[in-house]
Amino acid sequence: MKRKICVVVTARPSYSRIQTALKAIESHPDLELQLVVAASALLDRYGNTVKYIRDDGFKIAANVYMIVEGENLVTSAKSTGLGLVEIATAFDNLKPDMVITIADRYETIATAIAASYMNIPLVHIQGGEVTGSIDEKVRHAVTKLSNYHFVATKNAAIRVGKLGEDEGDIFVTGCPSIDLAKRVLEMPDLGFDPFEKYGGVGAWVDVKEDFIVVLQHPVTTEYALARRQAHETLCAARDLKTRVLWFWPNVDAGSDGTSKEIRAFRESDDASNMHFFKNMDGEDFLRLLMASKCIVGNSSVAIRECSFLGVPAVNIGTRQANRERGINVLDVDYDRQQIIQAVRKQMATTRYVGDRVYGQGDAGQRIADLVATIPLKIEKQISY
Amino acid sequence: MKRKICVVVTARPSYSRIQTALKAIESHPDLELQLVVAASALLDRYGNTVKYIRDDGFKIAANVYMIVEGENLVTSAKSTGLGLVEIATAFDNLKPDMVITIADRYETIATAIAASYMNIPLVHIQGGEVTGSIDEKVRHAVTKLSNYHFVATKNAAIRVGKLGEDEGDIFVTGCPSIDLAKRVLEMPDLGFDPFEKYGGVGAWVDVKEDFIVVLQHPVTTEYALARRQAHETLCAARDLKTRVLWFWPNVDAGSDGTSKEIRAFRESDDASNMHFFKNMDGEDFLRLLMASKCIVGNSSVAIRECSFLGVPAVNIGTRQANRERGINVLDVDYDRQQIIQAVRKQMATTRYVGDRVYGQGDAGQRIADLVATIPLKIEKQISY
Amino acid sequence: MKRKICVVVTARPSYSRIQTALKAIESHPDLELQLVVAASALLDRYGNTVKYIRDDGFKIAANVYMIVEGENLVTSAKSTGLGLVEIATAFDNLKPDMVITIADRYETIATAIAASYMNIPLVHIQGGEVTGSIDEKVRHAVTKLSNYHFVATKNAAIRVGKLGEDEGDIFVTGCPSIDLAKRVLEMPDLGFDPFEKYGGVGAWVDVKEDFIVVLQHPVTTEYALARRQAHETLCAARDLKTRVLWFWPNVDAGSDGTSKEIRAFRESDDASNMHFFKNMDGEDFLRLLMASKCIVGNSSVAIRECSFLGVPAVNIGTRQANRERGINVLDVDYDRQQIIQAVRKQMATTRYVGDRVYGQGDAGQRIADLVATIPLKIEKQISY
Amino acid sequence: MKRKICVVVTARPSYSRIQTALKAIESHPDLELQLVVAASALLDRYGNTVKYIRDDGFKIAANVYMIVEGENLVTSAKSTGLGLVEIATAFDNLKPDMVITIADRYETIATAIAASYMNIPLVHIQGGEVTGSIDEKVRHAVTKLSNYHFVATKNAAIRVGKLGEDEGDIFVTGCPSIDLAKRVLEMPDLGFDPFEKYGGVGAWVDVKEDFIVVLQHPVTTEYALARRQAHETLCAARDLKTRVLWFWPNVDAGSDGTSKEIRAFRESDDASNMHFFKNMDGEDFLRLLMASKCIVGNSSVAIRECSFLGVPAVNIGTRQANRERGINVLDVDYDRQQIIQAVRKQMATTRYVGDRVYGQGDAGQRIADLVATIPLKIEKQISY
Repeated sequence: MKRKICVVVTARPSYSRIQTALKAIESHPDLELQLVVAASALLDRYGNTVKYIRDDGFKIAANVYMIVEGENLVTSAKSTGLGLVEIATAFDNLKPDMVITIADRYETIATAIAASYMNIPLVHIQGGEVTGSIDEKVRHAVTKLSNYHFVATKNAAIRVGKLGEDEGDIFVTGCPSIDLAKRVLEMPDLGFDPFEKYGGVGAWVDVKEDFIVVLQHPVTTEYALARRQAHETLCAARDLKTRVLWFWPNVDAGSDGTSKEIRAFRESDDASNMHFFKNMDGEDFLRLLMASKCIVGNSSVAIRECSFLGVPAVNIGTRQANRERGINVLDVDYDRQQIIQAVRKQMATTRYVGDRVYGQGDAGQRIADLVATIPLKIEKQISY
Repeated sequence: MKRKICVVVTARPSYSRIQTALKAIESHPDLELQLVVAASALLDRYGNTVKYIRDDGFKIAANVYMIVEGENLVTSAKSTGLGLVEIATAFDNLKPDMVITIADRYETIATAIAASYMNIPLVHIQGGEVTGSIDEKVRHAVTKLSNYHFVATKNAAIRVGKLGEDEGDIFVTGCPSIDLAKRVLEMPDLGFDPFEKYGGVGAWVDVKEDFIVVLQHPVTTEYALARRQAHETLCAARDLKTRVLWFWPNVDAGSDGTSKEIRAFRESDDASNMHFFKNMDGEDFLRLLMASKCIVGNSSVAIRECSFLGVPAVNIGTRQANRERGINVLDVDYDRQQIIQAVRKQMATTRYVGDRVYGQGDAGQRIADLVATIPLKIEKQISY
Repeated sequence: MKRKICVVVTARPSYSRIQTALKAIESHPDLELQLVVAASALLDRYGNTVKYIRDDGFKIAANVYMIVEGENLVTSAKSTGLGLVEIATAFDNLKPDMVITIADRYETIATAIAASYMNIPLVHIQGGEVTGSIDEKVRHAVTKLSNYHFVATKNAAIRVGKLGEDEGDIFVTGCPSIDLAKRVLEMPDLGFDPFEKYGGVGAWVDVKEDFIVVLQHPVTTEYALARRQAHETLCAARDLKTRVLWFWPNVDAGSDGTSKEIRAFRESDDASNMHFFKNMDGEDFLRLLMASKCIVGNSSVAIRECSFLGVPAVNIGTRQANRERGINVLDVDYDRQQIIQAVRKQMATTRYVGDRVYGQGDAGQRIADLVATIPLKIEKQISY
Repeated sequence: MKRKICVVVTARPSYSRIQTALKAIESHPDLELQLVVAASALLDRYGNTVKYIRDDGFKIAANVYMIVEGENLVTSAKSTGLGLVEIATAFDNLKPDMVITIADRYETIATAIAASYMNIPLVHIQGGEVTGSIDEKVRHAVTKLSNYHFVATKNAAIRVGKLGEDEGDIFVTGCPSIDLAKRVLEMPDLGFDPFEKYGGVGAWVDVKEDFIVVLQHPVTTEYALARRQAHETLCAARDLKTRVLWFWPNVDAGSDGTSKEIRAFRESDDASNMHFFKNMDGEDFLRLLMASKCIVGNSSVAIRECSFLGVPAVNIGTRQANRERGINVLDVDYDRQQIIQAVRKQMATTRYVGDRVYGQGDAGQRIADLVATIPLKIEKQISY
């Protein structure tokens, strides 16, 4: 009988990140994939990730609506609680042999707690990293709830070990997002017209010319600042006068502030050099980055995939603080002048040499092979 | 303005354990106590802890009903989720400056997640200990969500430090349960008639003669065994032919199995030497233990308070595995013969010398002084 | 393709009542039964109805845990809300073509609202009756949410019509509980030993001699009185000195009061002529009633099935006020003397002639035939 | 001691409608107003009603986040359930003597069920009307849960009586929305610049010239059509070439379709004669209508307030089917040609004479006087 592996996908970035692992699990002879789509992945206004999941040919085992509207701190807590209630039902129906939870969001810990109390062996992907903010707390808490740790880097593995996890339960698989980056690096043609394929709003931008990509998320514990921070980047983008492809942020406390600022700016200021996209298939997004001169914002893509790809990056603020990084990144504050200077510097650079800190590009297959063979254990004890 | 300190009390044992800290917070000139009573502490069939709380003179800021009936693994997860939804509302109404969460139950992690996402500084009491089962995972996960750690023992402090918490955020306060034990040790008279004061059902037991106390909880991840395990102890209690005062377990996945076995045994077997209590005020319970020859079961009281008091203990099974212990404890399996032999050995012993591993008896006051003065911070980052 | 008919069963009495309809739906060539088991039907301490459902050979499509513990007015409301959240998930998974909801409980209205908002045609069974208390409000509210009404009596049909429902949507099927009564009436042998088959606790009662059956539910809006009301009946049962078979009540606000009073009475008073059962298969229960001299309490069984069977009944209090009744019923207050007198009068009576006010005994089949053929409509408008 | 009257306000239109009653309750010497703000009234993207409530000087007793994101049929049901869970907590904290619920939305029935199970006397405002769709079911179900009915029209009173409610519990107060209309009618000056005060996006429109107002809500049970229906009205608005002030719809299953269509139209088509507002204070909105030539869409404002004001209205589709109406309304289908023709006809009309079908303009005061004096009863029984 095949092992049933349940993966809970909850947002655009986590889907992109895990996609090759999902494919490898689905096609593994000893495994059955149970894909649960939850939270913002189901919502049109956060990019309708579920559509991309279906387009990629995956069968969806359960849809879990769990976001309580409000986009403030109270509703973040409540969404986690509702998610836990709902995910428990999904697990009760699906009876998975193992659950995979990804990264450090509130859906991640809801998934982890449901699996823990339901005695289902739990694999955590992307533990052991360091960032800051609430994600930091959640990520390490999920490590302590998990039975297995598939980490992206050697440093992450060392950190998970220090957290008292058994060495035998920690595996450096690399990040599956790099699998996609590897494929893109091997054949880097853009191969699609972003405006035709993804629509979006705003100016038409000639992607045969130089352009930059912006992706900036609100930072949870600096809620009130979200709008001002978005404004700095928007002004920088305006003043740079280069072509800009801007991606809307995913759902979080504060995202409304960011989205609102973007809408307000478009109405009242000059965004005539910018085009705004809601979402993009992960591989297409990487191809677009390969074609760009620079990525700007606070997305981890700039640190992970772009270090592998060698794409120049301008990282704004503290969201990626302490994340391991390659030579492709320049760090700046939420300050339009700093942003402009750094972008100009990066635009003047030729592509960087990629490095392998986040993996070799075979993480998806390694994850599938691991979940097919590791023991189905739920007990554990701190190692010190 | 006084700092508002919100403490979420969810069960009989956690209330007993925190009571002196609650008193010290309530009477501290710079603090306002916001006491939230939740989960099984509100339920009659788990001992109506809320009544004892009111009798102790505390004002209750909010009642939180959060247990989804079913007493199985699915409802444990769902109760955690519902608790999170409800506790978030309580915090939103009370606007505490700091939250205290206790130990390692599902209400503990629900409280911790609500505080974390709502940017409220979080203090964890009783972190850093080692047990086994789901509690183990939850305890360390709560450590990773918390800003401050008030631990019971030096070993616990070392362990929390290894988990990557800053040394400056860890305080060895001792366990506040020992405060009560200190008072009892100083004046150990029983001072009440347990049958008159607490009723209960079953045989009348002369507490002036030798008697033993039994308190056995179901073990979550060994769900199916709960009933058989209770049966072994019941048979041992029957065959020992000594006087037995038995306390019902608190709510948990499996408690129904334990409770059912007790009821079944009372109907169909010989429980003529046993009396069954639902609940008892914490101090009365310690006085009763002082008057007893031995405590039997798997309660942490046998390890903590009884090591301070020097009361002989027979600890059954793995529930307290790896918990630091004094010389008063004999460990046995869920096996009636082993239980009988160990109880006989302990009943033949005179009282042990108490030790200080779980504190000096001043934890409550130290906790109140700390929460009055430590910075109200929410940010943290792993220390390695 | 078969029509998928989803029935939500939530308690012992509603299961007994609907059982023949479930069988008829299951065996109908054009129908597929989707049986959802929810609320107290899943709980051991309310008679473990789910076990009887499985023993009857039904496949269960979903288990829905929805009772928030507390057994007070707040948790009744919260249980309804949690039920609605959970039942919506079940419907989303099962995609029924039609939903059947039964009677007037909080699970009934949760089911009705979920179906209404999810645009699933809704059939209500047992509408149009009159009782009192919160059930009265809920029953008629469910009528207004439902598309079809399968009522038990002609008076109920008239009342549903007056409520503004189209005559064409109202069907007098009779109550399916009478189907079972019909089978029992045709072959009334007891055919089982109740103590051997159902255990229970308390005195052994010789069912070959005269005995009475007691089934008394707490009355929601008279919460504080539940315990005193139970006490009166217990005293009457004690003083009657006849053999008594007593059935525990089902879950509701106040049931804890009733259960507690029963437990307290057994410990402290004389229940030596009483045996207590938790639950019984519906057909066995009717056979037991046929063998009894009288049914006492406030159950609707005394009014419905017993009027068909001609079993003498003593109905206590207002719970069944205004329910249509046959000649078999004597009404009394919660007063031990009135109860004793009425029981003595009924025990001196020979069996009554049965009447057909609640149906002919073919309701199950009629219900199945109807749900196979009525249009799948969701729109409706008040008829005046 | 003052009677505590809890009013649950959940959306922009229900707030506008109830505002004068809230003021009258607040200033009544025997009453204490407990205002609970819930659902879309808390959300920025549905007009941030809570801001207007605060600006109007009201103190808010509790915020209730209850909308589960998804804007589909499943999440409508789930939002109702979550609302019920949360509103029960609010009532438990506030201990109101009486609850007022408004109209026919899912928050309305969540409020009604919470009050019913918690034994709080319940007043329903705006019962007895006829529309169609799910609102129709919910409105009459709420009538059956309510103890008192404050209806807008004589026909509504007759209908509530037919539904089996006691004549003595039904009061024709008129609709409090008419109170505002009365004030506006008495002094109809616009008195503010809508663009300056409310911002919004799109063309600047000279409100001293002829203009029309559009307000079109999605229709729940015609979900898939929402987008196409919005498109017809947008095309009509474009082709009419008159000045158009368009208001975004409030939250509901399908609103995303409507909002999306509006956004898409603005990007890809010609909306150069339209300005789009998110929300407007109720009184300002009525003044704007007074200044307009015609209101277009499916809002009940066109039927109620505008009949009193005599403002010409073009009502599209079935949303207001069967609602009592004055002579000011022309009904058309979701068809751009019909819409254009009707608007042209209305724009050529001088203002209609107002009528009194929805009240005299003193409903707020009458409601306050009633809730101060009617008995606090919870029991009721159908009158036939």
